[in-house]
Amino acid sequence: MVTLPAGCDAGPLCITLAGLPARMRPADSELPGVTMHKFQLLCDSFIRAIRQGDYQQGDRLPSLRAVCQAHGVSMNTAKKAFHELERQAYIEALPRSGFRVLAGAAPHPLPDAALPLEALLLDSRLPAPLGSPFVNPALIDMRVLNRELSRAMHGYSSAAIHSPVFGLDTLRRQISRHYHAEGVHLHWESLLITCGGMEALALAIQAVLQDGRPPCVAVMLPAFPGALNLLRQLGVAIVALPESPAEQETLLASRPLAALLVMPNFQHPTGQSLSDAGKQALLDLAHRFDVPVIEDDTYRQLHFAGQAPLPLKAHDRCGLVLHCGSFSKTLAPGYRVGWLEPGRYLDRVRALKLCSTLSSPLPSQLALAELLAGPAVPRLLQKLRRELQQRTQLLRQAALAHFPAGTQVSEPAGGYLLWVTLPRASDLAALLPGVHAAGLHFAPGSLCLPETAASACNTLRLNASFYTAAAEPRLQQLGRLLGNTAGDL
Amino acid sequence: MVTLPAGCDAGPLCITLAGLPARMRPADSELPGVTMHKFQLLCDSFIRAIRQGDYQQGDRLPSLRAVCQAHGVSMNTAKKAFHELERQAYIEALPRSGFRVLAGAAPHPLPDAALPLEALLLDSRLPAPLGSPFVNPALIDMRVLNRELSRAMHGYSSAAIHSPVFGLDTLRRQISRHYHAEGVHLHWESLLITCGGMEALALAIQAVLQDGRPPCVAVMLPAFPGALNLLRQLGVAIVALPESPAEQETLLASRPLAALLVMPNFQHPTGQSLSDAGKQALLDLAHRFDVPVIEDDTYRQLHFAGQAPLPLKAHDRCGLVLHCGSFSKTLAPGYRVGWLEPGRYLDRVRALKLCSTLSSPLPSQLALAELLAGPAVPRLLQKLRRELQQRTQLLRQAALAHFPAGTQVSEPAGGYLLWVTLPRASDLAALLPGVHAAGLHFAPGSLCLPETAASACNTLRLNASFYTAAAEPRLQQLGRLLGNTAGDL
Repeated sequence: MVTLPAGCDAGPLCITLAGLPARMRPADSELPGVTMHKFQLLCDSFIRAIRQGDYQQGDRLPSLRAVCQAHGVSMNTAKKAFHELERQAYIEALPRSGFRVLAGAAPHPLPDAALPLEALLLDSRLPAPLGSPFVNPALIDMRVLNRELSRAMHGYSSAAIHSPVFGLDTLRRQISRHYHAEGVHLHWESLLITCGGMEALALAIQAVLQDGRPPCVAVMLPAFPGALNLLRQLGVAIVALPESPAEQETLLASRPLAALLVMPNFQHPTGQSLSDAGKQALLDLAHRFDVPVIEDDTYRQLHFAGQAPLPLKAHDRCGLVLHCGSFSKTLAPGYRVGWLEPGRYLDRVRALKLCSTLSSPLPSQLALAELLAGPAVPRLLQKLRRELQQRTQLLRQAALAHFPAGTQVSEPAGGYLLWVTLPRASDLAALLPGVHAAGLHFAPGSLCLPETAASACNTLRLNASFYTAAAEPRLQQLGRLLGNTAGDL
Repeated sequence: MVTLPAGCDAGPLCITLAGLPARMRPADSELPGVTMHKFQLLCDSFIRAIRQGDYQQGDRLPSLRAVCQAHGVSMNTAKKAFHELERQAYIEALPRSGFRVLAGAAPHPLPDAALPLEALLLDSRLPAPLGSPFVNPALIDMRVLNRELSRAMHGYSSAAIHSPVFGLDTLRRQISRHYHAEGVHLHWESLLITCGGMEALALAIQAVLQDGRPPCVAVMLPAFPGALNLLRQLGVAIVALPESPAEQETLLASRPLAALLVMPNFQHPTGQSLSDAGKQALLDLAHRFDVPVIEDDTYRQLHFAGQAPLPLKAHDRCGLVLHCGSFSKTLAPGYRVGWLEPGRYLDRVRALKLCSTLSSPLPSQLALAELLAGPAVPRLLQKLRRELQQRTQLLRQAALAHFPAGTQVSEPAGGYLLWVTLPRASDLAALLPGVHAAGLHFAPGSLCLPETAASACNTLRLNASFYTAAAEPRLQQLGRLLGNTAGDL
C-alpha cells in the first residue's frame, strides 16, 4: 500500500501524469491524503491510456505477463488491476484469453470548454478545489450514517410499499422533533422531503409563480449561484433586495414581486446574517405587502459559536415563509435529502412534487431517519463546526497574507465560505486555466450575481473546507497571479 | 410473532380497526403477507390513537403497567412498543418517569380529499392497490442490491469527492455496457444519471422547449399520467399522436411541434408496442420534419417472452431521440436512479441538470453500479418477468370473469398493467371510495388522457403486480359495482 501526501507523484507508475493535457482529470492518486493500492495505480494508468485514445475500443490489452514486466508489478497486482478495469466496464474478457477495450475515448470528445464554469468548479478532485460550493465530504464523518444505511435496508420492502410521495413519515417526524428542540414549531405533516435542498428551492419558486404574480424575485445579493441559475431557467427576473428595511420597503412599494429569496443565516457567499430584529422586520414587511419569503436554511447549523441562530420560519405567523433545508452540508453529502416547509403553499407544492421526481430516494431517507433518532447528531455537527471554523480562519489568514495589498476578506461567524474583495477589478475567469494547472481553482464573484456578462470582477469566493496548510504555496501562487493581473509586481 | 394473511384481523389488539374513519391509513398489520410482532401491533394502535387525536401533543401516555393490563401484553412487549414510538418521534421520555406525546394529530388535519386522485392511487398499503402505477416492490428481490449498498458505502468519501454532476462514471459505463450487449450503442459520456425516470422525462421536455419551438407535444395516447402532468405543469399543449404513419405524417405536416413523446415498448397503460417497422417509420418521419422524439424506455426489460425488443434509440442516426430509462420498475424501486441519453441535446440537458437537483443520490448510484457489474442482473430480471407474466394473466382471467359482459381486457406482451374497456361509460372516480372500503383501488382511464375534466369514462387501468388469487373476492366486488353503475344487475 502506498500513501500519497497531497500533491506528490507516485513514482515510476505515474510518469504519464507529467504533462497531461489540461482536460485529463487527475486520478485518485492525486487526491489529498487518499491511500492508494498498487493495483489501483496501475488501473488508473490504464484508464488514462484508454481515455486519451492510446487504446481504442476493441483493441486488445497487453497480456498479464507483459504488464508485469513493463510496470514492474507482481502477477497478483496485474490481475487485480485488470479485474478492477473489468468491474468498471473499461475492458471485457475475451473468450479464450486476454482482454479487450470495451469503452474507449469518446468518439467526439466533449472538451471541458463546453461545460459551463460552474460545472468545472464542481470538480473537487484537485489538491485545492477552493472554487467548489460544497462542503468537503472528507470532513463529514459518515460512519454512523453508513451503518444505519445497512441496517435500514433490512426493512426495505415494507418501507417501499409504504413509501409516501411526500417523504418518509419517520424522517419527517424526526426533522420536526429536531426543530422542536430548538424552539421552532413545524408540524411534520407540513414537511415535504425533497431530492436535496435544490429541489426544495425549485418547488418553492415554482409554487409562488403559480400565484399569477409577476415573474420577478428580490434576492439578497451576492447569492448562491444555484439559486440564480434556477431563477434564470424559470424565466424569472432578479432584482436586488436591499439591506436596510427602509430601502426594502421602497422596493416592495414600488413593484409587485413573486417572492423574496433570502439566506438569513451565514449567507452564501458573504457569510453575513440578519439579526433577530432584521429577520422580524423583513417578515413584517413581507406581511404588509403580502409577499412570500423563500428561506434557504442550508448553513444555519454551521455556526461557529454557541447556539444555532433562529430561522426566519420561527417568526412566521402567517405561513408566508417557504422554508428550505438540506442534509447535504451537514450530515449526508451526496444523499440528496432535503426538505421544504411551504407555509400556505402546501397544497400547491404537493401537486408540483407529484409531477417532478415523485419521491426522494428511499435508502437515503431511511438511513437519515435512523441517524436522527439516535444520539450521534449533536456530536457529529459539533465536530464539523470545529473543523470548519479552524479551516476558515486558516484560509482567511493565508489570503490576507498572500493576496494583493488592500484585499478584504470576510470574517463569517459560520459556514465555510470566504468572500474576498480585491483592490482592483480584472478578468478573474481568465486566470482559471493558469491556477488549474497549479492544482487549485476559485469562484469568480460574478457567479454570485445575476449579471453574468460582466467579465471585470473584483470579488471571489473561496471554500475553506478544502483548505489545509499544505495548499498554502498554491494560494500564494494565486495571490501572485491576482497581483500581476491588477498591474502589481 | 403473529403472521397475518392478507385481509385478516389481528384479534383483540385490533378492535380499534373496525369502523376506522376512511382517512385513517391502515397500519402495517393490514399489509398482505407482512409478519407483525406483538409490540409492533401495540405500537400501531397507539399511533392511530395519537393521530386521530385521542392523545394530544403534550399528553402523558398511560404507564407501562397500565398498558400491560389494558392490552394483555407482557412488560417486555409494552417497553418495546414505547421504544418504537420514541424512535419514530411520536413520544418522548419525561425526566422522572413516563412518556408524553411529542407529535400529535395535525392541528389542521389535511383531509385526503385535498390530495389529487393520483396521490391516493400511489398509496400501496391496501390489500389490493390495483390503481398504483408502480411495480409491487415485494416482487423485486433486493437482497443482492442491498448487500452491494452496504459494501459500496466503504468507499463513500472518495466517491463523494469524485462525484460528477452528470452521474457516477462507473454506473454510466455499466449502463452503456448492458445496452451494448443488446446491440444498442450508446456512449457512456453521453448519458446522464437522473433522479429516477421522471427527472429524465422532465429534462428531455425542458430541453426541446428551449429550441424556440411552439410548446406543443404529440403524445401516443392513452399515456403515463406522470408524463401528462409534467407537460401540463410546463404549460405544454398535448395533441394525440395517431397510430398510423399516414396520419402521423398529416399531423406533422399540419402543425409545428416541440417533440413527439412515445413509449414504443409495452406502452403505459395499453401494453401495446410498435413493430420494428413502425419504429423505423416513426423515426423517418421525425427526421423528415426535424422533430425530436422523447422515448420513455421504462418497461422494455419487462417483456414476457424471449428477448427484449429494441428501443427506438437503436435506430437513431441523427441524435433526434432523447432516450429515458429507469431502474425503478426493474431492479431498484425507491432508489431514484434513472438515465437520459439526449442525442443532440446533450449540452442543453447538462446545463438544465446543473440547475435542477445537481446530482442523483450517490449511495443509490454506487450500489447499482456494483449490481450491474456482477452476474445477478439477468437472473433477477428473469425472475421478475416470470412473476409479472403470471400475475398479469391471472388478473386478466379474473377481470374477464367478473366484470360486466362485453368488457375487453388488453393482453400485453410485457409490463404489468391491464387496460380495461367497459361496455358503457360512467363516473368511475365516484366508485373509488366504495371500493377503497373494500381494500382495493383502480385507476380511472381518464387519468391517462389529457382532458381531465371528463367524468364519464369507460376505461380503467389495473396493476397486476399487486394482484393475487386472495384478492379475487375484492375484484368480484368491483365487477359488481361496475355492473351496477352501468345499469346492469
